[in-house]
Amino acid sequence: LGNIGNAITGVGAEARRLAKEDSRRIVHAFKVGLAVALVSLLYFFDFFFDGFGVNAMWAVMTVVVVFEFSVGATLGKGVNRAIATLLGGALGFAAHDAASYTGDKVQVILLGLSVFVIAVVATFCRFFPKMRTRYDYGLLIFILTFSLISVSGYRNDEVWDMAYGRLTTILVGCCATVLVCSLVRPVWAGEDLHKLTASNIQQLGTFLEVFGGVYFQEEAKDDKNQVLLNDYKSVLNSKGVEDSLVNFAKWEPRHGKFRYRHPWHQYLQIGSLTRQCAYKIDALNSYLSSDVQTPLQHRAKIKEPCKMIISESSSALRELAMGIQTMTCSPSRDVHVVNAKSAAAKLKALMKTGLWPDADFLGIVPAVAVASLLTEVVLCTVKINEAVAKLAS
Amino acid sequence: LGNIGNAITGVGAEARRLAKEDSRRIVHAFKVGLAVALVSLLYFFDFFFDGFGVNAMWAVMTVVVVFEFSVGATLGKGVNRAIATLLGGALGFAAHDAASYTGDKVQVILLGLSVFVIAVVATFCRFFPKMRTRYDYGLLIFILTFSLISVSGYRNDEVWDMAYGRLTTILVGCCATVLVCSLVRPVWAGEDLHKLTASNIQQLGTFLEVFGGVYFQEEAKDDKNQVLLNDYKSVLNSKGVEDSLVNFAKWEPRHGKFRYRHPWHQYLQIGSLTRQCAYKIDALNSYLSSDVQTPLQHRAKIKEPCKMIISESSSALRELAMGIQTMTCSPSRDVHVVNAKSAAAKLKALMKTGLWPDADFLGIVPAVAVASLLTEVVLCTVKINEAVAKLAS
Repeated sequence: LGNIGNAITGVGAEARRLAKEDSRRIVHAFKVGLAVALVSLLYFFDFFFDGFGVNAMWAVMTVVVVFEFSVGATLGKGVNRAIATLLGGALGFAAHDAASYTGDKVQVILLGLSVFVIAVVATFCRFFPKMRTRYDYGLLIFILTFSLISVSGYRNDEVWDMAYGRLTTILVGCCATVLVCSLVRPVWAGEDLHKLTASNIQQLGTFLEVFGGVYFQEEAKDDKNQVLLNDYKSVLNSKGVEDSLVNFAKWEPRHGKFRYRHPWHQYLQIGSLTRQCAYKIDALNSYLSSDVQTPLQHRAKIKEPCKMIISESSSALRELAMGIQTMTCSPSRDVHVVNAKSAAAKLKALMKTGLWPDADFLGIVPAVAVASLLTEVVLCTVKINEAVAKLAS
Repeated sequence: LGNIGNAITGVGAEARRLAKEDSRRIVHAFKVGLAVALVSLLYFFDFFFDGFGVNAMWAVMTVVVVFEFSVGATLGKGVNRAIATLLGGALGFAAHDAASYTGDKVQVILLGLSVFVIAVVATFCRFFPKMRTRYDYGLLIFILTFSLISVSGYRNDEVWDMAYGRLTTILVGCCATVLVCSLVRPVWAGEDLHKLTASNIQQLGTFLEVFGGVYFQEEAKDDKNQVLLNDYKSVLNSKGVEDSLVNFAKWEPRHGKFRYRHPWHQYLQIGSLTRQCAYKIDALNSYLSSDVQTPLQHRAKIKEPCKMIISESSSALRELAMGIQTMTCSPSRDVHVVNAKSAAAKLKALMKTGLWPDADFLGIVPAVAVASLLTEVVLCTVKINEAVAKLAS
């Protein structure tokens, strides 16, 4: 009994955490409940039920299946379902019609064959990359509707009524879903993508700042800093989320600060550059805990330009993130980028002079590697800056 | 007209490419066609149709929706659908029963409220990470079935018949799907995961081998080598595919070389270590095209231990990949790992001596960074070797 109590408290705590992390989850759950309850009215009111009959079932199904977290995902699924039902229904109706002119046995063979062929072709189409990203669900519903209409027409001669009733209720379901999803506290995938892009860049900037303090041992590597130093790790594997958000955002109409045909694909490029920078940062991070460490007095010799690179790059990255967030183009980020570049040049010039004439070479290697990585971080920052500027233009 | 012709040829060429890349795609399409045609028989034969009636529609729907590429994905969806239909149907039946004792208006309110509450709670449950990975589809079907049974029961008093008919046909659909999917040329997610893990490790080994030749300019950086040098990039973003394959593989029963309860989670760890190694390799790759290059005569001084590290690490990685593929534990990979380690120690010792007394320091930095990265690649190889050994045990 105690175990059950513990499990319930655990689930409750987890639920609170999930709701606190993103309160839109609670709102989303209530929106789905609202939409399902709304289309249930098609059953409860005689006025509707006289019109739709048991076909009202398809409206309920549509709402449950199509309702997604973001407006873009919902719209994509809704449009896919509506158009695929229309096309599949029309083709199924045609197949039923064509087969009905033949004898009973031939009709069965023709219908079975047509279902088989359509299923094979449409399933294979789902492997085409372009279809997969945008129309996967539509192809599924196309097979579904075609099979249902053409095959069940064999037992029910009122195919037209059936197809018509199904199509209209599915349209009602799609409309209810899209309306509730986009009018009640809408969640825009485009906005999420935008924020994710900004926060990823921001995390790189934060890492650099903390790294500078810890590497030159001005700050302790305490728990708080350790957390900040690991924040960037989510950036490394962000590609999947980004891809699907871009895909959803493309379905969304003009909203908020985003005009219709906002260049969403540009976010993919920024994301890819951000990840490239994150790989360098991952390498920097490994030098904080590697077993061979350059003695502090040797690190001190490159400290000044390194700190300069770090502070200018992290300022540039954080201003870029801020600029994306507010959709403004602050000229000071260009200043930071230029400063970071000149600091990198200074570091290079400094390294040309015999910095560590009498030092143990092996002990210097990590510091040299760090310096080299920092200059590459500057290059990455320059590229990210260019890509963001392209987005703003 | 010419444009249409071009488009058709283009689609045809793409289809051929997709089929050639993985011939199982063609097989999959035919399997789906076969399964859909099979359940269509429920409509065509009087014997079946007398038993199932229009409920046969649910069998067709189930096949189309549940049939996935791999056995694990199909089984996961099928089990989710079957159990969720059972639970949702039972609960819907109970709600209908409880509401039917009240007056008409109260009944509507009670039913509407129960649908709302169930939809809200189940939708929120879909955000729990553990539910999301394994039971997302089940929760969706649970809401669907509950709403359909409880709400349509308001108009149709034969709820029991309806729920029973729906459940049996969905079970028939699930069984047909699972049988066709797992008996006709089955695609095992576990096997795909296994091969992906091996090929990812293999790609790192291949990169290293080519890198060694190109960096010390024994081989030209021609087109063929360029392709081999970019192969590893797919490893960087492999996490998403790996996660879903692990999730599917967990649904699969014992098959081929894999026993029931194969430690699939161990693949996630190997994958994560492989990606860490890939980040180092990405850094190495950037030194092939960076603008500051260490003069060849300076590189030559560290050539011997570097080449040793490269050849031993890449041999170890390739033997690891081969070992995973054949599920054998070759002891020679341990020898290669030991050799790589001792080569790394030799490189370190060499760097301790003043290797480049009169060289321009800046020009040496890239070579130092490469050497440092190579020693880290050795560390990664050691870790991957340990993780693979754990898998084999």
